Amino acid sequence: MPSAADLAERVREGDLRLYELEDHADADTAAAARRQLLAEEVGADLETVGDYSFPADRAEPNIENMVGAAQIPMGVAGPLPIDGSAADDDFYVPLATTEGALVASVNRGMGAIREAGGAKAEVLKYGITRAPVFSVSGVTEAAEVVEWVEDNEDLIAEVAEETDPHIAFNEVTPYVVGDNVFLRFDFDTGDAMGMNMVTIASRSVAEVVEEKTPASLVAVSGNLCTDKKPAAINAVEGRGYTVAADVFLPSEVVEDRFGTTAEAIAEVNTRKNLVGSAKAASLGFNAHVANVVGAAFLALGQDEAHVVDGSNAITSVEAREDGLYASVTFSSLPVGTVGGGTGLPTQSEALDVLGLAGGGDPVGTNGDALAEVIAAAGLAGELSLLGALAGRHLASAHEEHGR
Amino acid sequence: MPSAADLAERVREGDLRLYELEDHADADTAAAARRQLLAEEVGADLETVGDYSFPADRAEPNIENMVGAAQIPMGVAGPLPIDGSAADDDFYVPLATTEGALVASVNRGMGAIREAGGAKAEVLKYGITRAPVFSVSGVTEAAEVVEWVEDNEDLIAEVAEETDPHIAFNEVTPYVVGDNVFLRFDFDTGDAMGMNMVTIASRSVAEVVEEKTPASLVAVSGNLCTDKKPAAINAVEGRGYTVAADVFLPSEVVEDRFGTTAEAIAEVNTRKNLVGSAKAASLGFNAHVANVVGAAFLALGQDEAHVVDGSNAITSVEAREDGLYASVTFSSLPVGTVGGGTGLPTQSEALDVLGLAGGGDPVGTNGDALAEVIAAAGLAGELSLLGALAGRHLASAHEEHGR
Amino acid sequence: MPSAADLAERVREGDLRLYELEDHADADTAAAARRQLLAEEVGADLETVGDYSFPADRAEPNIENMVGAAQIPMGVAGPLPIDGSAADDDFYVPLATTEGALVASVNRGMGAIREAGGAKAEVLKYGITRAPVFSVSGVTEAAEVVEWVEDNEDLIAEVAEETDPHIAFNEVTPYVVGDNVFLRFDFDTGDAMGMNMVTIASRSVAEVVEEKTPASLVAVSGNLCTDKKPAAINAVEGRGYTVAADVFLPSEVVEDRFGTTAEAIAEVNTRKNLVGSAKAASLGFNAHVANVVGAAFLALGQDEAHVVDGSNAITSVEAREDGLYASVTFSSLPVGTVGGGTGLPTQSEALDVLGLAGGGDPVGTNGDALAEVIAAAGLAGELSLLGALAGRHLASAHEEHGR
Amino acid sequence: MPSAADLAERVREGDLRLYELEDHADADTAAAARRQLLAEEVGADLETVGDYSFPADRAEPNIENMVGAAQIPMGVAGPLPIDGSAADDDFYVPLATTEGALVASVNRGMGAIREAGGAKAEVLKYGITRAPVFSVSGVTEAAEVVEWVEDNEDLIAEVAEETDPHIAFNEVTPYVVGDNVFLRFDFDTGDAMGMNMVTIASRSVAEVVEEKTPASLVAVSGNLCTDKKPAAINAVEGRGYTVAADVFLPSEVVEDRFGTTAEAIAEVNTRKNLVGSAKAASLGFNAHVANVVGAAFLALGQDEAHVVDGSNAITSVEAREDGLYASVTFSSLPVGTVGGGTGLPTQSEALDVLGLAGGGDPVGTNGDALAEVIAAAGLAGELSLLGALAGRHLASAHEEHGR
Repeated sequence: MPSAADLAERVREGDLRLYELEDHADADTAAAARRQLLAEEVGADLETVGDYSFPADRAEPNIENMVGAAQIPMGVAGPLPIDGSAADDDFYVPLATTEGALVASVNRGMGAIREAGGAKAEVLKYGITRAPVFSVSGVTEAAEVVEWVEDNEDLIAEVAEETDPHIAFNEVTPYVVGDNVFLRFDFDTGDAMGMNMVTIASRSVAEVVEEKTPASLVAVSGNLCTDKKPAAINAVEGRGYTVAADVFLPSEVVEDRFGTTAEAIAEVNTRKNLVGSAKAASLGFNAHVANVVGAAFLALGQDEAHVVDGSNAITSVEAREDGLYASVTFSSLPVGTVGGGTGLPTQSEALDVLGLAGGGDPVGTNGDALAEVIAAAGLAGELSLLGALAGRHLASAHEEHGR
Repeated sequence: MPSAADLAERVREGDLRLYELEDHADADTAAAARRQLLAEEVGADLETVGDYSFPADRAEPNIENMVGAAQIPMGVAGPLPIDGSAADDDFYVPLATTEGALVASVNRGMGAIREAGGAKAEVLKYGITRAPVFSVSGVTEAAEVVEWVEDNEDLIAEVAEETDPHIAFNEVTPYVVGDNVFLRFDFDTGDAMGMNMVTIASRSVAEVVEEKTPASLVAVSGNLCTDKKPAAINAVEGRGYTVAADVFLPSEVVEDRFGTTAEAIAEVNTRKNLVGSAKAASLGFNAHVANVVGAAFLALGQDEAHVVDGSNAITSVEAREDGLYASVTFSSLPVGTVGGGTGLPTQSEALDVLGLAGGGDPVGTNGDALAEVIAAAGLAGELSLLGALAGRHLASAHEEHGR
Repeated sequence: MPSAADLAERVREGDLRLYELEDHADADTAAAARRQLLAEEVGADLETVGDYSFPADRAEPNIENMVGAAQIPMGVAGPLPIDGSAADDDFYVPLATTEGALVASVNRGMGAIREAGGAKAEVLKYGITRAPVFSVSGVTEAAEVVEWVEDNEDLIAEVAEETDPHIAFNEVTPYVVGDNVFLRFDFDTGDAMGMNMVTIASRSVAEVVEEKTPASLVAVSGNLCTDKKPAAINAVEGRGYTVAADVFLPSEVVEDRFGTTAEAIAEVNTRKNLVGSAKAASLGFNAHVANVVGAAFLALGQDEAHVVDGSNAITSVEAREDGLYASVTFSSLPVGTVGGGTGLPTQSEALDVLGLAGGGDPVGTNGDALAEVIAAAGLAGELSLLGALAGRHLASAHEEHGR
Repeated sequence: MPSAADLAERVREGDLRLYELEDHADADTAAAARRQLLAEEVGADLETVGDYSFPADRAEPNIENMVGAAQIPMGVAGPLPIDGSAADDDFYVPLATTEGALVASVNRGMGAIREAGGAKAEVLKYGITRAPVFSVSGVTEAAEVVEWVEDNEDLIAEVAEETDPHIAFNEVTPYVVGDNVFLRFDFDTGDAMGMNMVTIASRSVAEVVEEKTPASLVAVSGNLCTDKKPAAINAVEGRGYTVAADVFLPSEVVEDRFGTTAEAIAEVNTRKNLVGSAKAASLGFNAHVANVVGAAFLALGQDEAHVVDGSNAITSVEAREDGLYASVTFSSLPVGTVGGGTGLPTQSEALDVLGLAGGGDPVGTNGDALAEVIAAAGLAGELSLLGALAGRHLASAHEEHGR
C-alpha cells in the first residue's frame, strides 16, 4: 500500500484525482494524504482535524474526500422529565454547539420544567415526504394524471413498498401548476429519518407514473417535498415529525426560576414571537428553537441541513390563573435513530445517553421518542430565553417607575 | 484537585450541580466527571465523545456542561477558482457532513466551474441586524418614538459604537405595529459574524431610547432581526451577507460534465426551483444550498443554527446561445472569520485551508471572502444536482421517444 | 308612512338611530332619509348615489344603512372560446372596473386565444373551508380531540349536512398549536360560494365537538380557513376553486398579436413573475390576475374581498418548438352563481351574459364553469400584459443592438 | 350618427370591432349597441346594467367596451370620531358591498369607539412604488449597475420628477438576483394613489439606466413593487400608506357594547389572529379587514384590486388594567382622492361625505386623511367581530361551567 506522502505526490502530479485515493489505500491513509496535499498546496496544518477518534472507514457512507473530522464541543443538559406519547423518562440531552451560553440556557429551562413536574409531549403527525415534478402537455393532461394517481394509490403503495422493507406508504397529494404535476408522496420509514429511502421509492413510483400516464419525470424532487428550504407547505402540512411539547409552570416556579410573572412572559411572547414574527413575515414564531434543534442534531447524528425544516415552530404562552402555560409545536422535524449520521461513534454514543440508539421496539418508537425529546428540549430553551427577557423587562419597568 | 470520579459522586449525592464542576476541577476533568456520571446514570459509554483532540478549556467560551466533542467527518472539495470582489484565488473548500455523496456532488460542480474558467462572486450588501421591541401606549406615541429615532441617528451610532471598537453603525429601520415599536439596527462588525456584539450594542442603544422617549424595552430581540427563523424580512432585505456567485458554462462543458444541455438544466430549474418553490410557498428557490451551507458552517466554525438564514437563496439558470448561465444569490448569510466557533482547533485549521483564518487586512475582507467562497461552493452544489437531474431527464426522454 | 325628511329629522334629534329607519319606512325612503341626513350633516349631495336602478328592498340581504349604490363602469371582453371541464362555449366576459385600459388589455389577450383556437380549463379541486379554533388544556388533550375528530367524520358529516340541504361535507383537517386545536372543514356547496352556509354548518359541528370532547370553541373562524387574508395555506392547499386555464399560441399568433417571440415572453415571465415574485416573497406569481378577478367579481356579484384569495395564482410560460405555452393556475378562487351578490339586478344580468345565472344542472356546474371562465379571462390578461412587455423589451433590445 | 341597432348590426357583420364603436357614435350609444349585440348573441337583457346615472363619456378614462355599470349597494356607517395626524373629525364612512351584515358590524364597532371618545390614527410611512426589472450579464455587472444607481440618485430624481409636476422621488432600493437587477422606486404622488404616474416616471428613469449602464429593461414592473399580489415585501416594507389606528376601550364600554371582557377579546385575538394566522402562514393577521377595505374602496373610487395589498394588516389587542387596547396596522394601503375612479359621480359623492374629494390643502393631506379613515373603519370592523366572537365564547364558557 502506498504511503500518504506517495499518494499526495501522485495527486499533485495529476496522476490521481482527489477522490480516487480510497481506491489505492485505506481510508485513514487516504485522509492523511489529503491533509498532506493541503499542507503543501495551501500551507494549512490539519493536525487536530486529522486527530479523529474513529476508524475512517466507519465514515465512508457519510463523507467523500475525507480529511478528518470537525470537532464540535458537546455538553449535556438535564435531566428533563418527559411524559410523552413515546418518550417517558428523565432525559439528559446531549447538545453540540459552539454558541456559548446555549447549553446553560437550555439547562436552566429544564430546571424549571423539572420543578413543575415535567413536560408533556405528543407526536401529532408523522411522515417523510418526497415530491417529484413531472411535465405534461397542459392542464387537461395534468387532470388526467391526477385522476390516474387518485385511482391507483394501491399500485403506488405496492411499488413504493417493494423498494425497501422498512418503508410504508401513507398517502400522495397531487399539485398542478399549468403543465407541471407535483406528486407529494408521504411515507412512514420507521426509526429512520428516511430521505434516501423515500427518494428511491419515489423514483420507482415515478417510473410507473411515466409508464402509465403521459407524464414525464423532470426531477425526483420538485421542491414541494420541501427538503431543507424554508417553506410554508412544511409549516402548514408538516414533514417528518409534527410534534409538540408543553408544560404548566405554577406561579411560584416562574417567580423562583425567572424572577418574573406569567403575565410578563406572556407579554414578551406575544410582542416578540407572535407580533414580531408576523411583521417579519416569518415561518418561525419562536425565540430560538433552531439553536436547540441544531445542537441536538449535531450531537445526535441528524442531518444538519434539516435545521431549516426544524425551525418551523410556534411557541405559545398563556398566563393562566395560577401560573404559566407554555408550548412549542414543531411542524416539520425530520429525525431518526438509524441511518444517516446516527451510526458514527460520537453520535451513536450520544443517542445512547437518551437510550434511543438504533431501531425502536416496536419499530418507530425510538424515532417518535427522539422527536419528543427534542421538542421538550426546545421548550426548555424557549422558557429560559423568554423568562430571562421578561425578568429584565420587569426589572427595568420597576426601575423606571421608581418602585 | 478532586478526580472525575469524586466529582461525579458529589453530583450524584446532590452536593454539586452539573454546571458547577469547572469551579472545582480543570475543564478536562470536569468533562470526564460528567461522562462518568452519565455512564452511571444512563449506562452510556462516551468513550469517543471523550476522545477529543483539544484542551477542553479552549472550548470554554463555546460550551457549558461539556462532556467532549461531536466528531463530524470532514472532506474537502476543489479547487474552486473564484474571481470575486473579495475572494480571488483557487480554493479547496472544507465541508463537514454526515450526508453521503454531498462532498462528491459539490466537487463535481466545482469541476465544471473550473473547466469553465472559474466563478464570479459579489458581496451585494452586508450588515448584521438586531431588532429590539419596545412597548408604547399606542400609535401616537409610536410615531413620536420613530420621529425621535430618525432625528437621533448620530447619537444612536455613537452609543452603539462605544460598546465595541469593532462595531460600526450602518442604519436603523423602525417598524410599528400598534403599541409595539421595533427598531432594526444594522451594523458592520468587520470580520466577525458579530451577533453578540450587536446584541450588546443594541441593548445599550435601547437604554438610551428608553431614557429619551416613552418607549419601554420588552426584548432586545423582537424577531424582526430575524435571527435563526425563516423570515421574509431576511429574504427580502438581507442579513449578514447578501452575496451572489455565478458562472457561464459553455455548451461543451455542460455536455462533457453533465451529459445534458443548457436547455434541459434551465427547464429543471424553472419547474423545480422556481415553480415548485412558488407552489410550496417557500422562501428558498434553490435545490439544496442548505446542504452546502450547513457543511461549510460546521467545518469552518460558523453557527450551525444560521443554516436557517443561509437557506434563503435563489438559484437562477438561463440557457444562452452557446451555453448555460447559472447563479445563486444568498440574501442572508451570516458568517465571520473571528469569534464564535472560529477559534476552535479543527475549525481554525479549516479556515486556514481557505487562507481566511482570523481578521482580514483590511478589516472585513476575510469575512467578505468567506461569504463569497460559500456562495460559490453553493453554486457548485446547485449545478451538480441540477445537471444530474437534467441528465437523467434527458436520458429518460430519449428512451421514451425511442431515439 | 313618514317622509324621508321626517325620518332624517328624527335621526338628527336622536329619536331614531341610523339603522332603524327601515322599521319605519320602505327601503327606498329610508335610503333617501339617510342621504338627506348626510346632506345636512356633512353637506354632501348624493344625487347619483341615490339614482340606482333597482328597488332598494332587493338589496336588503346585502346592505345595511343603505344610501344608494356605487356605480362601477362595466365593459365586456370577448368572445373567449373555452374548452373546459365545465365551461364549453364562446364567452363574452363582463368586467366592472375603474382602471382604464384593463378591459382593452383583456380583450387583446382573448383575441390571441381566439386566433389560437381557444383556451383549455380545468377545475382541479373544489371545496369551501371554515376552520374554527378551540382551546384545550394542552397538547395531550389536543391529541385526544384530534383523535375524536378522526374517528367521527361520519357524525361530523351528518351534523353539518343537517344544517342545509345544499351542503355536502368533504373532509376535515385538524391542526394543533399547543393548546389550540383548529379544525379545517371542507364542504361542497354546489353553485353557491357558500361562506355563510359553511359558517353555520361549522358552528353546528363545533357544538358537537364541544359536547363530545374537552375542547371549547373560541371562534368559528380561527384564520386557518383562510378567508380574505393572503395565506399560504390557501396558495398551497386551495380554497373554493383550484382552477387552471392554458393555451398554446403558435409562433405566428405570438408574432401577429404581440409583435414578439415565445422566447421573449418566456423570459419576461421568468424574470418578473417567477424570480421577481420569489424575491418579493410573494404568494402571487403572476402579472396582474387580481385586476381581472376584481373586475369579474364586481360585475358578476362575487364578494369583492375575495379578490385577496383570488390573487394566489401562478402564471407559467414555456417557449416550445413552434410557439408559446402559457397557463394560469389559481389556487383559491371562491366563486358562485347563487347567493351573495349574484341576485342583484346588474350582477344577475351580467351572469346572464355568461349563461351562468342561478343554479347549474347538474348542481355545481354553473359554479365550476364560472371558475373556469374567470381563469381563462385571467389567462387572457396575463398574455396581453406579458406580450406587451416582451414586445417593448424586444423592440428596445433591437434598437440597442442596432446601434 | 348611427343608431345603437346599426352599430350592433355592423359588429355582427364583422364590419366593426367591439372596441371601435366609440369612433362612430357617442359613448352612450356605443354602450347601448353593445347591450343590443349581447342581447342578440347570448340572449342577455342588460336593462339595469344600462340604466346608469352618469353620462357614459365621464367613464371614458376608466373603461373600454362599456355596456353600462355594475351597481353595488352602498351604505354608511358612523359617525366615527378620529383624532389622527391628518384626519381630525367625525366621519360617516360610505361602504359599498354585497355582503349582508358588514355595514352593521362596522357600525357597531364605531359605536364602541365613539363611546370611548374616538380613535387615534397615524400615517407611519408613505410612498408608492414601482420596480422595473433589468437583465445584465451576471453578478459583476449587476454590482456595477447598483453602484451607478446609488451614485446617481439625484439624476434619477430629476428624470422622474420631469415626467409629472405632482410626483416627488423618495428613494430607490436595488435588489439583485443573479443576472436580474430590480430597482424599487418609491415616490410621493400627493393626493393621488399614483400608480400610472409612477409607472411613467419609472419607465423614464429606466431609459436613463439603460443608457448609462449595461442594464437592459425587461419589464417596467418586475413584481417587487409589489402591485396587487400578496407579497411579504409590502407587508414588511410598506407600499402606499403604512397607517395605523387604535383605541382604548374602558372595561365598561367592552361590557356594554360586546357583553364580554377585555381578556376574552384578547384571547380571541391571540388564538385566531395571531396563532391561527401564524399556522396558516399568512401575511394577514387580522379578522376581516379586507371586507372593510373592499367596501370602502368600492364606495370611494379606489382600485378594487388593491384590496389585495390592503389586506396586509396586523390587529393587536391587549387587556390592560382597566380596559382593552386594540389597534390595526396596515402596511400597504394604496389610496388617493384624485385620479383613478375618484372622479366618477357616485364615487366623488362618497368622497364628499368624508369631505375628502379632490386634492388636499396642503397637497397630500386628503390622501393621508383617507388612509386614516379607512384604517379606523377597519379597526371598528375588527373590534366588532372580535367582540362578537368573544361574547359568544364567554357565553358558551359560562353555560358550560354552569352545568
